Amino acid sequence: MKRVKVRKGNNVYEGIEIPSVDEKYLVLKLDNGYNIAFRRNEINVNTIGEFEKKSKKTEKKIRYRKELRDVSIIGTGGTIASKIDYTTGAVYPAFSPEELEKMVPEIFELANIYPREVLQILSENMNIERWKKIGNAVIEEINKGRSIVIAHGTDTMHYTASFLSFTLKNLNLPVVLTGSQRSSDRPSSDSRMNLFCSVKFATTDYNRVVICMHGTMDDTFCYVHKGVKVRKNHTSRRDAFQSVNTKPVAKVYYNGEIDFFEDLPEKHKEKAYFDDKIEEKIFLLKVFPNITHEILDFLIDQKYRGIVLEGTGLGHTPSILYNTIKRGIDEGVTFCMTSQCINGRVNMNVYQTGRKLLEIGVIPCEDMLPEVCYTKMMHVLGHTRESDEIRKLMRKNIAGEIME
Amino acid sequence: MKRVKVRKGNNVYEGIEIPSVDEKYLVLKLDNGYNIAFRRNEINVNTIGEFEKKSKKTEKKIRYRKELRDVSIIGTGGTIASKIDYTTGAVYPAFSPEELEKMVPEIFELANIYPREVLQILSENMNIERWKKIGNAVIEEINKGRSIVIAHGTDTMHYTASFLSFTLKNLNLPVVLTGSQRSSDRPSSDSRMNLFCSVKFATTDYNRVVICMHGTMDDTFCYVHKGVKVRKNHTSRRDAFQSVNTKPVAKVYYNGEIDFFEDLPEKHKEKAYFDDKIEEKIFLLKVFPNITHEILDFLIDQKYRGIVLEGTGLGHTPSILYNTIKRGIDEGVTFCMTSQCINGRVNMNVYQTGRKLLEIGVIPCEDMLPEVCYTKMMHVLGHTRESDEIRKLMRKNIAGEIME
Repeated sequence: MKRVKVRKGNNVYEGIEIPSVDEKYLVLKLDNGYNIAFRRNEINVNTIGEFEKKSKKTEKKIRYRKELRDVSIIGTGGTIASKIDYTTGAVYPAFSPEELEKMVPEIFELANIYPREVLQILSENMNIERWKKIGNAVIEEINKGRSIVIAHGTDTMHYTASFLSFTLKNLNLPVVLTGSQRSSDRPSSDSRMNLFCSVKFATTDYNRVVICMHGTMDDTFCYVHKGVKVRKNHTSRRDAFQSVNTKPVAKVYYNGEIDFFEDLPEKHKEKAYFDDKIEEKIFLLKVFPNITHEILDFLIDQKYRGIVLEGTGLGHTPSILYNTIKRGIDEGVTFCMTSQCINGRVNMNVYQTGRKLLEIGVIPCEDMLPEVCYTKMMHVLGHTRESDEIRKLMRKNIAGEIME
Repeated sequence: MKRVKVRKGNNVYEGIEIPSVDEKYLVLKLDNGYNIAFRRNEINVNTIGEFEKKSKKTEKKIRYRKELRDVSIIGTGGTIASKIDYTTGAVYPAFSPEELEKMVPEIFELANIYPREVLQILSENMNIERWKKIGNAVIEEINKGRSIVIAHGTDTMHYTASFLSFTLKNLNLPVVLTGSQRSSDRPSSDSRMNLFCSVKFATTDYNRVVICMHGTMDDTFCYVHKGVKVRKNHTSRRDAFQSVNTKPVAKVYYNGEIDFFEDLPEKHKEKAYFDDKIEEKIFLLKVFPNITHEILDFLIDQKYRGIVLEGTGLGHTPSILYNTIKRGIDEGVTFCMTSQCINGRVNMNVYQTGRKLLEIGVIPCEDMLPEVCYTKMMHVLGHTRESDEIRKLMRKNIAGEIME
């Protein structure tokens, strides 16, 4: 591993050279944690120092303590609980009990920790097949009496949380998704506090799927958000995840205190299971000025069973799309309406254009986020193709996704 | 026009019956301003009263005052400066000087007002052809020495503001878009204050395209937002429009005071014009888990010239799309990356997946909103098909869309 000084024009950059996929480029990890890429033919490079990456495995037995709850930490990849291997540029999971204890020793005081690695992906590559792996692993762990923390990349964590909210049935233990906006090799990393607060929350009786992430830009507390009412609203800030159209479930302070903002949900009597009946042919389509009907015709021709429209304002599309939407509905495609405004509720009774879409048969999805509506449709259409039943279920509050 | 009482099950609703497109339904305008639709076969209806809509035209000459600036108010339709005709259910513009003086008499103390109706549409039906009409009308009015207020539906007002920011060149007078989240026949309407503040701001020397809308839920002040850094972030709240990745330009109080948060832009020496060289074949595509490559293949086959990717996180897509994106770029399609997080900046150097997209040739669009990137591509690709030039222009700050 080399520390280098790069000169480009009048500017000088210093950092660790990390491997580039393309030899034409040099990629530098700056001391502030950001990477920067240079065309090799535009720069001069001086090596300042070379050193070896340390890699030492120590076997350490974690002691079981009867008075603590059992928490399984399911690894899926992503920035949290990962380290960057500077010799390959790859992010690799740091998921042994030893690694976890080195990174965040205080969680072993909160619970008996069972790490389990299910996936090793960056979350932009999350898909239905992988969701099923996670869902099945969660149920296996829950059947051992363990609460769940899922370490997940942040890009699509809210999609996964919503998917699991609809498909994990009869939960009597918490399922807490958490991630990291800054990798653990950076001083500003949020991994440690997010994991701590997530494990802490996993020891409560809040038996729902939630996301637990930084509540502010500093290290004071995490917010716990309902898995169906949360969104990543910033590309890089540590408090990127925000509850939408509702308040968070709870605050978890870094000293372990928890403030709940609502009562605990009721317990279930039946056994928990993962409901894997999923319709895969669902599309999430954002509408915009000048969109044409061909795209909808294409999706209908491709046999999509459901289309979530991310409409404008209270739930509108250009009227040029009406005929094609009608064609789709006539052919059995379900159209649901959400709003690209993100905040607020669709209301298609205010304007004639909205009423027209209702008449055609578009289902208004209240204050559901487009991303949540998307995963809900996968679940609902996996169970029925009967249009009245679909409409009833899409408009029914199944997992807290619709607020009164 | 009939006032009726509707009984459905145990519930009773009272309001004005407004015409329904489908005879099977009765549509009621409640006193709180909301509409509600009933299936006629599920309700009992009692008429409480009938009355005629008043329609009286009075000719009133607006006096010209030399000491005031001239402001043209361009009507495009939408909720603002509109009234609902209860005999047809249609929203019609209230755009004569008489109507304006009845609705918001105080603007005639601020400026010499020249109303001009250009369109009569709800803004979900805004498109390029209509944008061109607006652009040409703005320049005609500006050439008469008039500042501009554009009354616009709120659904797509931020798309229009962004489009005009790139295509109205050499502005030396303000162009202020405004709208209304609640129609003027409702007590909670925001029409009056929004129009007042917009006309007031139009009398300043801030020679850019801006949006002026309620700053809070009450009637204290409006915020003025840069046309390229603003978004409708709520379906129904009066303060739905928010500056993104920057602060507003100014506050305009309902007493006419203005607090500027930045210096006035420089004046232009050349004459203002509307740059109507527009590439229409641009698509705005939100990516999501499980999206497949067929949709991109379709857009490329349909000869789209530019595709704005609304990626996840710092600017990512599932890797399953890489080959198709590469195919598109090889065939001359421009791909730009923005983030569905809305807030923050794309940074495709942090993870290997982002670097891979950069290598393929995707253009990272900094802190540009997806909607802004979409209208900017229309403008840029209307001027050049040379890929290096496109890249240079997309990454160059043209109208304030990229913050340092």
